[in-house]
Amino acid sequence: MGRNFLAGSINMDLLSIFGVILAFIAVLGGNFIEGGEVSSLFNLPALVIVVGGTLGAAILQTSLRNMKRAFSIFSWVFVPPAQDFEEAVNRVISWSMTARREGLLGLESIADNEEEYFSRKGLQLLVDGTEPESIRRIMEVDLYVKEDHDLRGSRFFECMGGYAPTIGIIGAVMGLIHVMRNLADPAQLGAGIATAFVATIYGVGLANLFLLPISNKLKSVVQEQFHYREMLIEGIVAIAEGENPRSIEVKLQGYLNH
Amino acid sequence: MGRNFLAGSINMDLLSIFGVILAFIAVLGGNFIEGGEVSSLFNLPALVIVVGGTLGAAILQTSLRNMKRAFSIFSWVFVPPAQDFEEAVNRVISWSMTARREGLLGLESIADNEEEYFSRKGLQLLVDGTEPESIRRIMEVDLYVKEDHDLRGSRFFECMGGYAPTIGIIGAVMGLIHVMRNLADPAQLGAGIATAFVATIYGVGLANLFLLPISNKLKSVVQEQFHYREMLIEGIVAIAEGENPRSIEVKLQGYLNH
Amino acid sequence: MGRNFLAGSINMDLLSIFGVILAFIAVLGGNFIEGGEVSSLFNLPALVIVVGGTLGAAILQTSLRNMKRAFSIFSWVFVPPAQDFEEAVNRVISWSMTARREGLLGLESIADNEEEYFSRKGLQLLVDGTEPESIRRIMEVDLYVKEDHDLRGSRFFECMGGYAPTIGIIGAVMGLIHVMRNLADPAQLGAGIATAFVATIYGVGLANLFLLPISNKLKSVVQEQFHYREMLIEGIVAIAEGENPRSIEVKLQGYLNH
Amino acid sequence: MGRNFLAGSINMDLLSIFGVILAFIAVLGGNFIEGGEVSSLFNLPALVIVVGGTLGAAILQTSLRNMKRAFSIFSWVFVPPAQDFEEAVNRVISWSMTARREGLLGLESIADNEEEYFSRKGLQLLVDGTEPESIRRIMEVDLYVKEDHDLRGSRFFECMGGYAPTIGIIGAVMGLIHVMRNLADPAQLGAGIATAFVATIYGVGLANLFLLPISNKLKSVVQEQFHYREMLIEGIVAIAEGENPRSIEVKLQGYLNH
Amino acid sequence: MGRNFLAGSINMDLLSIFGVILAFIAVLGGNFIEGGEVSSLFNLPALVIVVGGTLGAAILQTSLRNMKRAFSIFSWVFVPPAQDFEEAVNRVISWSMTARREGLLGLESIADNEEEYFSRKGLQLLVDGTEPESIRRIMEVDLYVKEDHDLRGSRFFECMGGYAPTIGIIGAVMGLIHVMRNLADPAQLGAGIATAFVATIYGVGLANLFLLPISNKLKSVVQEQFHYREMLIEGIVAIAEGENPRSIEVKLQGYLNH
Repeated sequence: MGRNFLAGSINMDLLSIFGVILAFIAVLGGNFIEGGEVSSLFNLPALVIVVGGTLGAAILQTSLRNMKRAFSIFSWVFVPPAQDFEEAVNRVISWSMTARREGLLGLESIADNEEEYFSRKGLQLLVDGTEPESIRRIMEVDLYVKEDHDLRGSRFFECMGGYAPTIGIIGAVMGLIHVMRNLADPAQLGAGIATAFVATIYGVGLANLFLLPISNKLKSVVQEQFHYREMLIEGIVAIAEGENPRSIEVKLQGYLNH
Repeated sequence: MGRNFLAGSINMDLLSIFGVILAFIAVLGGNFIEGGEVSSLFNLPALVIVVGGTLGAAILQTSLRNMKRAFSIFSWVFVPPAQDFEEAVNRVISWSMTARREGLLGLESIADNEEEYFSRKGLQLLVDGTEPESIRRIMEVDLYVKEDHDLRGSRFFECMGGYAPTIGIIGAVMGLIHVMRNLADPAQLGAGIATAFVATIYGVGLANLFLLPISNKLKSVVQEQFHYREMLIEGIVAIAEGENPRSIEVKLQGYLNH
Repeated sequence: MGRNFLAGSINMDLLSIFGVILAFIAVLGGNFIEGGEVSSLFNLPALVIVVGGTLGAAILQTSLRNMKRAFSIFSWVFVPPAQDFEEAVNRVISWSMTARREGLLGLESIADNEEEYFSRKGLQLLVDGTEPESIRRIMEVDLYVKEDHDLRGSRFFECMGGYAPTIGIIGAVMGLIHVMRNLADPAQLGAGIATAFVATIYGVGLANLFLLPISNKLKSVVQEQFHYREMLIEGIVAIAEGENPRSIEVKLQGYLNH
Repeated sequence: MGRNFLAGSINMDLLSIFGVILAFIAVLGGNFIEGGEVSSLFNLPALVIVVGGTLGAAILQTSLRNMKRAFSIFSWVFVPPAQDFEEAVNRVISWSMTARREGLLGLESIADNEEEYFSRKGLQLLVDGTEPESIRRIMEVDLYVKEDHDLRGSRFFECMGGYAPTIGIIGAVMGLIHVMRNLADPAQLGAGIATAFVATIYGVGLANLFLLPISNKLKSVVQEQFHYREMLIEGIVAIAEGENPRSIEVKLQGYLNH
Repeated sequence: MGRNFLAGSINMDLLSIFGVILAFIAVLGGNFIEGGEVSSLFNLPALVIVVGGTLGAAILQTSLRNMKRAFSIFSWVFVPPAQDFEEAVNRVISWSMTARREGLLGLESIADNEEEYFSRKGLQLLVDGTEPESIRRIMEVDLYVKEDHDLRGSRFFECMGGYAPTIGIIGAVMGLIHVMRNLADPAQLGAGIATAFVATIYGVGLANLFLLPISNKLKSVVQEQFHYREMLIEGIVAIAEGENPRSIEVKLQGYLNH
């Protein structure tokens, strides 16, 4: 991530932004074509109930640490961390060539200059002369702990996406209870029911157009990172085992289709 | 847990309390803005049906032992057991240094003074000179049995969260049956339907604003504890294998991001 | 089980009975407070459709053997098989002491008098001088096959709990079709709709107040038995490996929190 | 299967047939008691939409090979393949005694006369003098491939059971759209709504009274077969390893409770 | 795939096309029999909301790479990649015979002419004299990475199938809000409700008649490919281990029922 950032190429995911805009335009546009007024889709009580209730339920269930992680990885939806598998394979191969030429200690200066946390940790273990199997075990703990932590962050949005529609129903039913007093007067009844229904739209829309896709996107980014790091571990362990650069290349190429 | 408690710093999870309050205010506030009366949200028959039915179903399905556990871990929602991973890593390293200096028997007095059950058990196994692989197997049985027991406790709330909305529907339909006698009189019909709908709100609200978030919070705390104890096992086994403190530190650091 | 039965202490699970009664009272009591007549909750056609349809679907899907098992383990809901983990640990330790004193053949008379099938099988394998690893493999097949069989029994109630609500909907819709002929006459329409709704209550109530909790309770008992037998296997294999009673006690104590 | 068929004892599962009939009678009987006319439950458009749409979706998603398998295993619902575990254990023991007396080559004539594909394959591997571990690996590939293939067949019915209710909703909503033109005329409206509702009954009934139970029954039969073949592999590998008949019997008896 | 394409036999899956057409005819035909006008099923606002919203949510959640894969494997629904297991077994056996006769280097010209990527990679590893276990590990990485990538492609359709019905509900509720203004005028109300319901049909129909079956079909094709490649790996590793052609044939035959 740092690597790419320094290189000046922020890896903006225009597709995600386009997705949000498309969904927004489609729903409002459909309403417009139908002749519906946008104002009829705004309703403060419904907004308070759905957004407040959903946030409340999500906050009750999430620890501070996981919520912080959720906010810090939220940006990945639009600016995913750059993971250039091809470049990483080349990097690992160049490390293995340095190790061949200069021994594992030759990787010391590379380790010091490496910006990415995960690669740096692996290089330092190589420089320390750690056993291949120990490197694998140590880095895999790191791999799984990080994945678990990030998945919990993405679950913050998933759980909000699960609560929003049902809390939308609470809002709608509360609205309906309110209008039931006017059951004999169809004109007022209609307006009341319309207002009540807005809470359903807020709940279902929030969940299906924003929260759930965001959570799924984040999960997918986390898995991508998992495979990227898995490949790094594979490569670093192979260097520790003294495999030759050509054989490491063959081994890592399988990750490239990824 | 004991450790922190003695230190006087109860680890109050203010976030959880804020979550409950936020959800409560949002739902009642939304109703208030809309002009609904709070009194229209109170309905004794609906309360009896939803709370009694949900509790009845949950009690039928849960053994006494699991229900007791559910109540005893309930407090974790607001006062989660303190699990300071960083402090625990330091503790394990200091044990490993004592073991280096004074041999495993040097840990005897530390074991006797250790308040936390899981650490004490591990230290005693070290002092007894148990084989590393035996320590791992013995402590892992403990780890899994405890996790399983706590997860069953958290499932008490999860199952109530599953039953509440459907029992809310039972209450609503029973209310509707009751009002169907007044189908010809819209004024009375409206009031009747409103009352019937309250059962739905009770069921869905109880589940989504309290029971399910509580169950998910508890599950998350239990998993955190699992990782904490996993790290302790890793460290104690490493001491038994005679690894040096520096290498144990590298090994356990992967858990710190957790 | 036999052990406890002989000892005269039937392990009645009063909690389960209380759960059923609580749910029943809550639902009928709520209806009563509301002023609904109990008679309006009784409807023969709805009962025939929901109970007959649910049973029919469940019978179509279950083999005779699994259905028999479902009925034979049903009693566990109210009289769960006694599994005193503490007593079992003591029993295993006393076996290991006998084996130390008199050799494995000394367990012969204990095996002959053992009433519980699983313990007896393990003791006989010990007396036959079977290899520890063979004992483990042979008893684990037994363990998994029994667990699988019992879980299928509990699934009979789970699948009925899955079908009942949807078949309740079939009953309700059939009732609604019937009353649609009276759409112009609100008085008759109301009575008709009320009758139709009763099928929904039967379906949802049967599933959520009885069938699903029963199935979950049975699953929980089966898992408890699984852990109990797992502990027995662990202990018997340890005896076969000639471990000393003290070390067996440490090993099995992890199961006690269970 | 062939074995039993030749023996003249078709293993008819009367219970399944009884289940179908019970469900059918319950639903129609309930309707009859209520005073509903059977004719009101027949509706050609609803039938075309639900059956055609469900079949279309299922055919789109299933390959020819899996659909063929679905039809060929459909008969297992009512005539499950005979799997007499006790008889099979005896068969394996008699093989092991032959192998003891006459050597593995003595199994040649038994292999030639064996009708069941899976047993024959195992016997031939024994006669060929294949290594025990190779026998296990070769037969396990067969085991998993067959199980996977049969489960895909059963999934044909499961997926239809998943689509039917939602396509029933499509039919119902299309019917409702049709009747909305008569909203002002309650008499016609009622008849129209009734017709529309029939599609819901078709979708939910087809799924819950036939398709899902059938798919679950098939899955259960496939799993039973899996265990049966697993036991055969265990026995044949034990013969290859030269275990004595008594020890094989002890080993396989664990499957008998199955 | 290339293999078959060159051979001129495109493996058109007529069944899938028939499935789509059948579902389409069933739904429209049912509507026609009922006397519904096709025009009443067309509604531009509903189309914009459902298609736009579903696409927007799916695009927000999918990375460019996975979306590209989704489009590139879409054709597999109607033209699945040919996987003739029997032909592949024969191919592997002929390779093993060449390897026996001419040594592994004799496979060089076969590798150069092999069109299928996966077989070529395996053959090249054989020619390079790679260790059997290395071949397995290298090719399994490739296998799992490819499967993962293709499953993500198929999930694009699955997630659209998940969003479509709920977005259909958004469209319906927005339509209902719009018509609520005419609650007092049944004639207009009916037309309005009818229009609103069309969004439900679009959402549910799109999901259940197209998107979900397509996603399931793709998943099934991907799994078939997985087994096909698994078999290739098994065969190539066996050649590397110097097994004789007959024994390889026995080993691979288990895949043939697949």
